[in-house]
Parts: sequence; structure tokens; C-alpha cells
Amino acid sequence: MLGTCLENVRTQVPLVHNITNYVTVNDVANVLLACGGSPIMADEAEEVEDITSICGGLNINIGTLNKRTIAGMLLAGKRAKEMGHPVLLDPVGAGASALRTGTAIELMDTLHPTVIRGNISEIKTLASGSGTTKGVDADVADAVTEETLDQAVAFVKEFAKKSGSIVAITGAIDLVSDGETCYVIRNGRPEMGKITGTGCQLSGVMTAYITANPDNQLEAAAAAVCVMGLAGEIGWGNMQEGDGNATYRNRIIDAIYNMSAQTLDQGAKYEIR
Amino acid sequence: MLGTCLENVRTQVPLVHNITNYVTVNDVANVLLACGGSPIMADEAEEVEDITSICGGLNINIGTLNKRTIAGMLLAGKRAKEMGHPVLLDPVGAGASALRTGTAIELMDTLHPTVIRGNISEIKTLASGSGTTKGVDADVADAVTEETLDQAVAFVKEFAKKSGSIVAITGAIDLVSDGETCYVIRNGRPEMGKITGTGCQLSGVMTAYITANPDNQLEAAAAAVCVMGLAGEIGWGNMQEGDGNATYRNRIIDAIYNMSAQTLDQGAKYEIR
Amino acid sequence: MLGTCLENVRTQVPLVHNITNYVTVNDVANVLLACGGSPIMADEAEEVEDITSICGGLNINIGTLNKRTIAGMLLAGKRAKEMGHPVLLDPVGAGASALRTGTAIELMDTLHPTVIRGNISEIKTLASGSGTTKGVDADVADAVTEETLDQAVAFVKEFAKKSGSIVAITGAIDLVSDGETCYVIRNGRPEMGKITGTGCQLSGVMTAYITANPDNQLEAAAAAVCVMGLAGEIGWGNMQEGDGNATYRNRIIDAIYNMSAQTLDQGAKYEIR
Repeated sequence: MLGTCLENVRTQVPLVHNITNYVTVNDVANVLLACGGSPIMADEAEEVEDITSICGGLNINIGTLNKRTIAGMLLAGKRAKEMGHPVLLDPVGAGASALRTGTAIELMDTLHPTVIRGNISEIKTLASGSGTTKGVDADVADAVTEETLDQAVAFVKEFAKKSGSIVAITGAIDLVSDGETCYVIRNGRPEMGKITGTGCQLSGVMTAYITANPDNQLEAAAAAVCVMGLAGEIGWGNMQEGDGNATYRNRIIDAIYNMSAQTLDQGAKYEIR
Repeated sequence: MLGTCLENVRTQVPLVHNITNYVTVNDVANVLLACGGSPIMADEAEEVEDITSICGGLNINIGTLNKRTIAGMLLAGKRAKEMGHPVLLDPVGAGASALRTGTAIELMDTLHPTVIRGNISEIKTLASGSGTTKGVDADVADAVTEETLDQAVAFVKEFAKKSGSIVAITGAIDLVSDGETCYVIRNGRPEMGKITGTGCQLSGVMTAYITANPDNQLEAAAAAVCVMGLAGEIGWGNMQEGDGNATYRNRIIDAIYNMSAQTLDQGAKYEIR
Repeated sequence: MLGTCLENVRTQVPLVHNITNYVTVNDVANVLLACGGSPIMADEAEEVEDITSICGGLNINIGTLNKRTIAGMLLAGKRAKEMGHPVLLDPVGAGASALRTGTAIELMDTLHPTVIRGNISEIKTLASGSGTTKGVDADVADAVTEETLDQAVAFVKEFAKKSGSIVAITGAIDLVSDGETCYVIRNGRPEMGKITGTGCQLSGVMTAYITANPDNQLEAAAAAVCVMGLAGEIGWGNMQEGDGNATYRNRIIDAIYNMSAQTLDQGAKYEIR
């Protein structure tokens, strides 16, 4: 089933417009190519509507936010919505500065994204509607574990219902919900946290998946989470002595490049609640 | 012969000023070092003339264009021309937005670049002098194939003559012409299209080549195309099971780092028309 | 002894705020993770004070400087100083443009950084207090060699005393001084110069080290230099036939990821003058 979502990406080669941070942008482009999509990056207000118009989906990521690109995000997002394109919001660092919190909330309220994907602290910041500057510290306290899972599932369902978006919370255990159904996903490796931008990469891949699977976006979003986590497992299995996080980064993207629908269906670890 | 161009780069270590996009900039810097050049990146209007003055050549790439850097491109380009430095224009995405098309045409008309390097759709947009927003879709229809080769050679010669620039169109078959002579190059691998920025990398390398070979710029530009394509072939030959586009990216730059004049002369596949 | 500095980074996981260039930013983030720190990148004036407030140290790097980010550097630096956070200044390209020289001097004079780290030409530009546009050409003439070592040690001590900062000059021989004591370090490989951004990476790692070792910042800065150089040696030892600078880049970061206190203490090559 998830494998069908993967095949649709490879067949349709969705063109994804990315307005994203300059830290991980190269990896986002390469992982989009690896999964079967096609990336375009453009952030200048004067051109983002043109660029979005020739694309199939829009990925907005607020890492290394600046005021010039906020204008571009809003313009691109509005045009994408008008054209019926899926829009993904990755609220990187919401809670860590008033600018990020405020911008993430403005983007959420204005664009009603198809998917909001972040870590638990970022999503809690959006759900509470107010900015704190403790976003980074909140990680440990808020982490989704087997002990807090029931509560976290209830939270993600409620926030998805309230926001009208599919909400994906990624961490040790990943949750993806549309308000009714929740995928609980247990793929991945803790060492992925030692690579910058695996979250940004996932947002890129997820945008390709929801674009190529318009009638099945919840499953497509969950499939993207499984792809990324499974690639982390496969990539880890290919590590040699002396390899570290730089090589691991490459091996994960390589694993996505080589992943078949069958590999995904066999390796995906999820339950539906 | 092409090998001499390569050796001149390694001997002279040309310092190349790059005003380029933030997606592939790190690869452009590393590939410039790999080929024997030395990269500097600077895009702020207030400093670009200083930076260009200490360099030997200028590489202008309009990916992730913004209004601040357009000013820098024009100032740097004018200073470079005054100093007699070669200037390369890479019109990334010309045709995909009015801003990119307009800026690419303005840069072409103002700077009369030594070389214009792009894919066939970008170059056709420049040649027709008008912007469409179908740049990305045009790729397949316009592709240079054995069937359309005669026509494409005639087109590149005509545009080179009209523009006064060496024109390099890269794709499955690459064409490099100064209006009289046309190199038709058949190095490369289709899998290179699964890596972001091989075109940007080529523009960086080509700028180093035309800078270090001032009396032989057409051949130098063709040599750079052969270097990149041959590196793609060598890098592909070094791929192991499980490797994908992330590893392939590294292997291509590695192959350029290790390429000798002899390897280039033996591996270059071109004819002159 | 240096190994204790390394262990403190791994134990404390210092959060480092980086305002840095877009060429090498991804490598800086990954190397900070590799050494045991945690990176955040943010450059917009409106948010940098918030971001710095939740961090432990600040790394300011003026590569690809622009006027928007200069404002962010000054605001972040002032807030960091108010909070007692260590601040590192990497004056990339000081001497290559009036903007970079002027900005580096303004940051030095305004912020009195805990550490200033650069190559010999950049540091000489700061010490002379005036900008030349010959920064890049000065490298060879100014290089620290066994012949010029006594003179270079005297220079770095004097500049450290005058500036009130720990000064780290990196090159074939590295010098780190607080004005009284000078570490003379002979780790590293010349091939590291064929990778873009090893200096930027070192500045990131060094910021993590001085943040996690507040009572021992001179030794911590020296330890970071040894870590980077030793990783260059270990990474080089892991190179295979056909590998080049792209793979070498990954192997250096991998070596930092895997480096133990014991490896550092056994491999560090330094004397104290």
C-alpha cells in the first residue's frame, strides 16, 4: 500500500517548489531527486508565484528565516492554494524566537497547509498559539515515548482536527494524523539526529509524496515518514568502520535513491490508531 | 590538446569569483578546488567590485536569484569586463519566471559574457528574447538528440554569432560553439541528472578553464564539458552496490580531483562541426 | 589534558549559534554535531537576540557577508556578551574587500571576541587595522613556516595582548595564544586546503570547545585545532584509490565524529612557547 505511494512519485516525478533554509537546501534537493521528485528552489517575492505555478507542490521551511523570504512564503503559499497545490509547512525552530513562532502561526493561519510537519516542541508551540523561547529545551520533556504515546496520539488528532491540516510529528516515534486516523511509526535510528537536516529532507520528500498522491494524502505522508526512517536503517546497515555522520548522511540519501516499493512495504513499521 | 587546457588550470590556479545560488554553492567551491582553481564567493553589491578585482574570472549563476544579488551581478560583471576578465553567465531557470528571464537577458545584453552556458530550454529562452514560464516543461520537447542534432548545431552557431558569446548547451549531447566552430560532445551519463547542480558545477569549472586559457577559450570551454562528462563516467564506474545519487555526487568531484591531462585526452568524446 | 576538553563537549552538548556564510554552512552544522555540539543557524536581526539567548556560544563568520546579516552579527554579539557567552570571530576574507575588512574590525572593536580565528593574512589585516585588497595574494608571503616561527609567535602574542582576545592563526603550522602562552600545533595535512571550509568548520568546533570549557578557553581553543588537524590526518589515512577532495571532506567529519579523548591525547602534536 505504501509502496504504491512510492511508485506514484517515481512515475509522476512531481515538481516541488521549495522555499527553505540555506543550511540543508542541497540535501533537500538531492533527496527530492533520490525519491523520484524534481526540486526547484526560489524565494524572491517577485518570482515565487511564477515558480509555484509551474510546480505541483510547495514546501515551506522557516529555518534561517528572514524578512525578505517571509514575503515570498506568503505569496507562494497563496498562489499554490489558488491552484489547488498541496502545501507543506515545516515550522523549524518555532518556539525558539518570536519571529519564528509568529511567522509559523501566520503561515498556518493564512495558508491552512495540507501538512504541518515538525518535532513535538515545534508542533506544541503552534498548537498553543503562543511563542516561547524554550523550544529547544522542550525537546526532552515533550518527547513521544511508549509511556506518553496515548496522550501524544490524542494531542496530534486534536491538533489536526483543529487546524484542518494533516499533522506529522517526528521523533523517536513518529505520528501522522488527519484528525481521525493516526499512523504510529517506529522506523528510524537515533543516530539520524547526528545529521543536520533529516527533518528538512523528510519535509521535501513528504511534499513530493502528497503531490503525487492527491487522493491519498494521509497515507502518502505516512509513507514518506516510513521511507525516511527505513532509509536511516538501511543506511546504518551499510556503515563501515571509521564512518561517521558525514558518510551516514550520504548513505541515507543513497538508500532512498535505491528504495523499491517492495522494500518499503516490507520494512515499514507502523500501526494505525 | 584538451589536456593542455587542464594543465593550464592546475598550473595557474585561477581565482574565480562566483555569484551563485545557495543550493549548490558548496559543490561549486569544491569542484573548483578539485579541478585546480580557487573559489571565492561574494554577492554583496558593496564588495563585489573589490572581490572581482583580485580574481581572474567571474561566474554568474542566477539560481535562487534575489534583487539584492542582481545588483551585485551587474556591478561585478561591469568591473570584470573593464579589467578584461572572462565572464560566464549561467541562466538557471530562464523561462521559469519573468524575473529570471528578464535578469538573464539584462545580464547578457549588458555584459556580453565570454560564455553563456545552460540547458537547451534556458538558451532558447535567451535566444528568443522573451520570457515564457514553461521553461521546465520545454526540456523534453527541445532535447538535443541525434535526430535533431543538425538543427541544434545550426541554432547554437547562430545564437553564438548573434550574441557574440561562446555558447554552451549541455544535455545528453553537449554543444559548444563560438559561431564558426561547434564542438559536439558525447561524454557523460544520464544519471548525472539525478544529482542537483552538475550544471552549476560545470559552470564553475568552465570559468576556471576559460580564465587559465585566455587565448583558447572555445577549446577550454569544450574541455571543461568533457572533464565534467568524463568525471561522470569515471565516477559511475566507481559506484558500489547500495550507492546512490549522494555518493555519485562525491565520486564525480573526486574524479575531477584525480583527472590527468592524459585521462582527459583519452576519454574525451567529441567531434568538431 | 586536551582529551578532557573533548569530553566536556560530548557531555555538555553546547548549543552554538552560528551566523555564517552559505558556502560551508552545512558542513559547519554537521561538524558541530560530529564533535558533540548542537548547531543553530539564524542571521535575521529581528530574531538573533532570541536565538543567542537560548544558546551557550556564538560563532560569527563573515564569509558571503551582506548588509542584512552584519546587523544581525552586531545584535547577536552584544547580547551574547551581556549574557557572558563566548563569542568567536572568523574574519573570512578580511583584506579582500573594504567591506570585509571594515566589518571585521568593527566586530572586533565592538564585541571584543573571546577568540579570533583566521589565516595569517586575515589576522595581519586585523592587526594592522587597515584594509588592503591583497588579502588572498598575501598568503604565500606571510605563511608561518619553521623559518618565520619565532617572529610569528611574537606577532600572535602581541596581537592577542593588544586585542584582549585569544588569537588562533591556522595554516601549515597553527598558533593559538592568549598573549602570554602560545600553542604551536603541527597537526593537519596540506590536502585539507583542497576542501572548501575546513577553516569555517574549525571555527564551529572551536566555539563548541570554548563554550564547554569556560575555565580553560585557551587550552580548549588549542584542543579544537588539534581535533581538526588530527581528523585531517586520520581521514587521509582512510582514503582509497580514486578518492578525492569530496570524499576527503566526509572522512574528516567522520573522524571527528569517532574521535575519543584518548585518540586526541595520543595524536595531538603541539608545543607550548
